[in-house]
Amino acid sequence: MDEASTMPATIEFWYEFASPYSYLAAGRIEGLAAAKRLAIEWRPFLLGPIFKTRAHDPSPFQNPSPAQRRYRWRDVQRLCAAAGLPLRLPSTYPRNGLLAARVALVAIDEGWGPAFTRAAFHANFAEDREIAAPAVIGALVAALGHDAAVVLERAASPANKERLKASGEAAIRRGIFGAPSFLVGEELFWGNDRLEQAIAWARAPLDLPPLTIGG
Amino acid sequence: MDEASTMPATIEFWYEFASPYSYLAAGRIEGLAAAKRLAIEWRPFLLGPIFKTRAHDPSPFQNPSPAQRRYRWRDVQRLCAAAGLPLRLPSTYPRNGLLAARVALVAIDEGWGPAFTRAAFHANFAEDREIAAPAVIGALVAALGHDAAVVLERAASPANKERLKASGEAAIRRGIFGAPSFLVGEELFWGNDRLEQAIAWARAPLDLPPLTIGG
Repeated sequence: MDEASTMPATIEFWYEFASPYSYLAAGRIEGLAAAKRLAIEWRPFLLGPIFKTRAHDPSPFQNPSPAQRRYRWRDVQRLCAAAGLPLRLPSTYPRNGLLAARVALVAIDEGWGPAFTRAAFHANFAEDREIAAPAVIGALVAALGHDAAVVLERAASPANKERLKASGEAAIRRGIFGAPSFLVGEELFWGNDRLEQAIAWARAPLDLPPLTIGG
Repeated sequence: MDEASTMPATIEFWYEFASPYSYLAAGRIEGLAAAKRLAIEWRPFLLGPIFKTRAHDPSPFQNPSPAQRRYRWRDVQRLCAAAGLPLRLPSTYPRNGLLAARVALVAIDEGWGPAFTRAAFHANFAEDREIAAPAVIGALVAALGHDAAVVLERAASPANKERLKASGEAAIRRGIFGAPSFLVGEELFWGNDRLEQAIAWARAPLDLPPLTIGG
């Protein structure tokens, strides 16, 4: 048995703090992964730079039609109800997730990444708090028992900023175009509604033929 | 007990023959609805006129990024494998679903709508056949035991053309912006991945509060 096969299978969870469907996935992934004995790799990133690489932005996240806009929140509401997650419609949407993502990277390094991730999503989507504000994020950090000033300083360090930027570049390189996304090896799954499928794949990937036109 | 409550609960299935996710839903809905004793109302329609009402087309169906385009077919492939549906990547995409939708309306009137719908989706996505071609659609109709010339003539009648147009207008009025969509009363669900949720709703709707910003 080689080293790799003794490691637990891993699912990479790529999430954006502005995204309500990332909130849903963040609220569901730990229970689902634990039930299948999967490790989670937490990958906060920003969608903005990815959307900017497109000539036209085809994302309903940024540019929905009125019908889509109405639909989206009803859809999120129904899914939150089904998942047992609280929801308050954010008075600002989408919120800038930059600061939260930078702090999440620090938290992940220090072993409290999942707790911070949940807290920041909860602030945005269950409490309608402005997660772009250092005071809000600082309060979340403090509530988790960490020194807000120290953490915010680490989050703002050039190395940490660079790391988030590199994450965004890695996302593009690996084919990610939206959030949440899940990677199992290089197999990509997009959307909260693909979480169960991604987890099943991590345990037992399907052996699918290459896709060719007309093939 | 009033008359309505003795009727079976109904799910409206709005589908577009060009849409691979509509193919998936068409292949799954009958078994799922039957298990819950739900009636299906088959509603073929066209997405093109809906997309044209938008200033910018935010639909990945029409305007995907290269990453989305790569992802989509892999996603469809995985979902078809899970649903036990065959898939051949269409050499033309999206195909024009106008003729198939018109014929589907005739078939629905005459009681063979589901069979024709399955056949036309199968031709497009499992056999890579040009469903915009009268010869292809005519062959499907004939294989189902109907007179192709008669059916194609009915499909091309002014009344039938008008009916499809009216369906598209009804779709917009009722908030539909993509396909497949499901309506349970006026509760809208979008996407093959919401089919199970729509069916559950038809049996037992959630009682959700109105959504207000910050509420």
